[in-house]
Amino acid sequence: MKIGFVGLGQMGAAMAANLMKAGHEVTVWNRSPAKADALVAAGATLAVTPAAAAQGAVVMTMLADDAAVEAVVFGDGGILGAPALHVGHSTISVALAERLAAAQPGAYVSAPVFGRPVAAEAAKLFVVAAGADALIDRCAPLFAAIGQRFFRVGDAPQAANLVKLCGNFLIMSVVEGLAEAMTLAEKGGVGREALLEVLMSTIFGAPVYQIYGDILVNDRFEPAGFPAPLGLKDMGLVAAAAHGAQVPMPVLGIVRDHLLSVIADGGTERDWSSIAAIVRRNAGMG
Amino acid sequence: MKIGFVGLGQMGAAMAANLMKAGHEVTVWNRSPAKADALVAAGATLAVTPAAAAQGAVVMTMLADDAAVEAVVFGDGGILGAPALHVGHSTISVALAERLAAAQPGAYVSAPVFGRPVAAEAAKLFVVAAGADALIDRCAPLFAAIGQRFFRVGDAPQAANLVKLCGNFLIMSVVEGLAEAMTLAEKGGVGREALLEVLMSTIFGAPVYQIYGDILVNDRFEPAGFPAPLGLKDMGLVAAAAHGAQVPMPVLGIVRDHLLSVIADGGTERDWSSIAAIVRRNAGMG
Amino acid sequence: MKIGFVGLGQMGAAMAANLMKAGHEVTVWNRSPAKADALVAAGATLAVTPAAAAQGAVVMTMLADDAAVEAVVFGDGGILGAPALHVGHSTISVALAERLAAAQPGAYVSAPVFGRPVAAEAAKLFVVAAGADALIDRCAPLFAAIGQRFFRVGDAPQAANLVKLCGNFLIMSVVEGLAEAMTLAEKGGVGREALLEVLMSTIFGAPVYQIYGDILVNDRFEPAGFPAPLGLKDMGLVAAAAHGAQVPMPVLGIVRDHLLSVIADGGTERDWSSIAAIVRRNAGMG
Amino acid sequence: MKIGFVGLGQMGAAMAANLMKAGHEVTVWNRSPAKADALVAAGATLAVTPAAAAQGAVVMTMLADDAAVEAVVFGDGGILGAPALHVGHSTISVALAERLAAAQPGAYVSAPVFGRPVAAEAAKLFVVAAGADALIDRCAPLFAAIGQRFFRVGDAPQAANLVKLCGNFLIMSVVEGLAEAMTLAEKGGVGREALLEVLMSTIFGAPVYQIYGDILVNDRFEPAGFPAPLGLKDMGLVAAAAHGAQVPMPVLGIVRDHLLSVIADGGTERDWSSIAAIVRRNAGMG
Repeated sequence: MKIGFVGLGQMGAAMAANLMKAGHEVTVWNRSPAKADALVAAGATLAVTPAAAAQGAVVMTMLADDAAVEAVVFGDGGILGAPALHVGHSTISVALAERLAAAQPGAYVSAPVFGRPVAAEAAKLFVVAAGADALIDRCAPLFAAIGQRFFRVGDAPQAANLVKLCGNFLIMSVVEGLAEAMTLAEKGGVGREALLEVLMSTIFGAPVYQIYGDILVNDRFEPAGFPAPLGLKDMGLVAAAAHGAQVPMPVLGIVRDHLLSVIADGGTERDWSSIAAIVRRNAGMG
Repeated sequence: MKIGFVGLGQMGAAMAANLMKAGHEVTVWNRSPAKADALVAAGATLAVTPAAAAQGAVVMTMLADDAAVEAVVFGDGGILGAPALHVGHSTISVALAERLAAAQPGAYVSAPVFGRPVAAEAAKLFVVAAGADALIDRCAPLFAAIGQRFFRVGDAPQAANLVKLCGNFLIMSVVEGLAEAMTLAEKGGVGREALLEVLMSTIFGAPVYQIYGDILVNDRFEPAGFPAPLGLKDMGLVAAAAHGAQVPMPVLGIVRDHLLSVIADGGTERDWSSIAAIVRRNAGMG
Repeated sequence: MKIGFVGLGQMGAAMAANLMKAGHEVTVWNRSPAKADALVAAGATLAVTPAAAAQGAVVMTMLADDAAVEAVVFGDGGILGAPALHVGHSTISVALAERLAAAQPGAYVSAPVFGRPVAAEAAKLFVVAAGADALIDRCAPLFAAIGQRFFRVGDAPQAANLVKLCGNFLIMSVVEGLAEAMTLAEKGGVGREALLEVLMSTIFGAPVYQIYGDILVNDRFEPAGFPAPLGLKDMGLVAAAAHGAQVPMPVLGIVRDHLLSVIADGGTERDWSSIAAIVRRNAGMG
Repeated sequence: MKIGFVGLGQMGAAMAANLMKAGHEVTVWNRSPAKADALVAAGATLAVTPAAAAQGAVVMTMLADDAAVEAVVFGDGGILGAPALHVGHSTISVALAERLAAAQPGAYVSAPVFGRPVAAEAAKLFVVAAGADALIDRCAPLFAAIGQRFFRVGDAPQAANLVKLCGNFLIMSVVEGLAEAMTLAEKGGVGREALLEVLMSTIFGAPVYQIYGDILVNDRFEPAGFPAPLGLKDMGLVAAAAHGAQVPMPVLGIVRDHLLSVIADGGTERDWSSIAAIVRRNAGMG
């Protein structure tokens, strides 16, 4: 298929490379074009504008935040009105997803992904898609090229963004709960690793506990898999959705406050799971 | 082995039955002796006091709360001073576990269990044990008779109680997080079941999410697997441990407040996971 | 002095009337011009644009939110570039105040007010002003015409907006604390009125406790002195400021969640202090 | 009147001295008798047991906590059964007050006080009394000798203890709210003192804001007027009352967590208002 890919950060570059490996013809665009070099060397075409990357069957966007998505869609040389079906992989607000759906009728699918860069490289992402079934059907081979599985969660594209935000919120709530429990255990004489082993072996045996449990046991917050400022941004998107839907979320309040403390403490380069360090400090540890 | 079993509630009766099935000779005691009828019919001996049940190699206790344990250990006819090794399975305070250890030097092991009554019947409990290694070695065949696996978490018996309390706290924190996320998703047009399926299929695929996710998706809070007042009692034990260790636990504060609301609302017969109904009500849903 | 007044809601209309009573020559503008009728009948001039109201010495703005202020300043016919000194009385974000200051160098003062409509009518407002001293000096007679006292809180205009937001946050924190204490007292057999009397007579004898204590004692949430949606908007501005400054504010999280519950419950016409009804409901009361 | 006074800490000694100044004949008892020296030198009689101090018309108790009150009432040589009317000034649990009322029918009044030691010395305490009217009438001249005003809050003695606990909770909630607002203001460029002045001059002009505002503006947490561990104890009593009455109190959760952090940080000698230092630290300030 003839595909455009807009946004070549760590995640996007890996996804575009996997699409090429699967035999698709890929045109790429990135704000700083240097990031496209490796892909171009591997056979991708470099577009001069996002619109130029959106002349094929599908254009995928994988960008940092709402502002970046607004710029490549609605800005000069933006993809609005271009012939390609727009598949939005970015983690953006529910409100922007609604706006994108309204501005691109019949031509927009939201498909945010779960997975860290290493999963993107291995084509092991989980893709959460929402939009008209026929549109998603068209994307199925592309999702197969970048991920291990995809889900349909509704006809309204923003449903997928909401699910993605709920997922990220739940990751943070797992980290917060784990951090509180591990701190209590350790001050009471039970090592964090011992607690984690019991949890993993009983009813908490899920990757989210293993991945973040290991980070917490070792206080390994750098290098960041997902930096605290991005985590705070995402929790802000959850809060905006909760505000719009009038849903009180007290655990969200706690994790946002702890993320603020991380950043107030100079932790912009630390992983979002370093809220655990705040929990420990508040208990007089470390 | 010659074993005593004190406390024949739903959990204790199932555990005692499994010990008998494994070939152990079991003497039982319960405050209301009628609960022993089925076991006696199956070959158990009925003791007239806890002490009388503690004349063999091991006496196990599985009781509702600190007060009940204090009564059978320190009260008239209590097991204090009896020859058997005392193995405490009850979910009790860290402070009482310390006191039991001090009062029964070389003769006490804490071994609280994870699992609902159906797991107890199936001999599928997880046993978390702490105490001197030699004592736990002696118990290993007994733990094998009642559970699918056991863990050693330290030499000080109260370590096991602390791990049990951490586990129960983490269950409540999972329920609270799930309830907040599901409420947000549903008000935003994504069914709770759809959200749960994505979670289970990605990085949250653990029994705790399946078990409580199903309850939440269906608002199935009665009959209670674990009633809210017991949940509140356990969260009170976590709070006491956190107070003793000086560990702030803000998520604990939220779940305790929500459990209070359940009970203030007349929900003494509802499952502890019905804190989810409070989360929903606070969002203006049913 | 020749003055313009933009924004003739309940507060603005009363302030403009008091300026006229004090002998100032007032030109008014409002989006829906009908609201100007009474003032015009009393001698005010009706302007066709905000800019037309900004040709004198000072133009005051008293509008509902950031968007309304942006429209009258930066929009078509806006006051940007007009000769008058701009005095902003609206409760707006710290970020917008900074932008207003930057866009109107040497010509902008922030001066939000404390007081309900009845205080505005009685010229009993408190005015919190920030900006260059010389500019504030110019405004002093105007502040005297609308308020009982004014404060200088800094050279940067946004300082005044921050103080206003802190004040509104503290009102909500008083209401939340009172609601929790009154609910506890009442369930324990002590009437809310009796508790309030003790508080007022000892160390809590301030208007904020009297005003909101009376509302809470009588559950008198309608008609609203300040409706919940405006309260939620203001708490959102506090949260934005706290986010910008990286200050965790857990009490703010609680009051925002309770305001969301008020609105989710259909309470858009209720006073912001009706968060107390949520506190009571969560305790199983009425 | 012939009066006994049990408990000669800073508060009790000052109260006993004022009773003597008012012409009452005072017999005193304290666990460590040395604390009675000054009063004995001034004419008080030293009793050998609490019971010996309870042979007159009234015996007042002013002790540190529930355990101390239980000891002097129910212990050996305790005042239970002695002829004097027992007036309990200590800050104790609602549950113990109920028990004292039941054990001393027609002979017990709860009368906790508001005020720091300096107010006790100046006979400026506020006395909150509950019990049978006729009993309180008998105490009126005594309350006049130690305080500036007294309140009747109900027939059931524990009502007074509940009001006292509510008052202490509200002090902590004021400190927490102030600390959050001051931190936000200061990081935004508005000095804490400037904020406090605006608050005091508008609708927050109450002693509680002045007293704690001054402490917070100057970070003057030592010497402690009321040490953090006592504050935590009192907040624990509030939590026990809230648990008994099934009242969720989220602000209470926050202040308890912050008090735990103070103590985990080594702050046992700091004032309870030093929760403000935790709020600041969580915002990355000093």
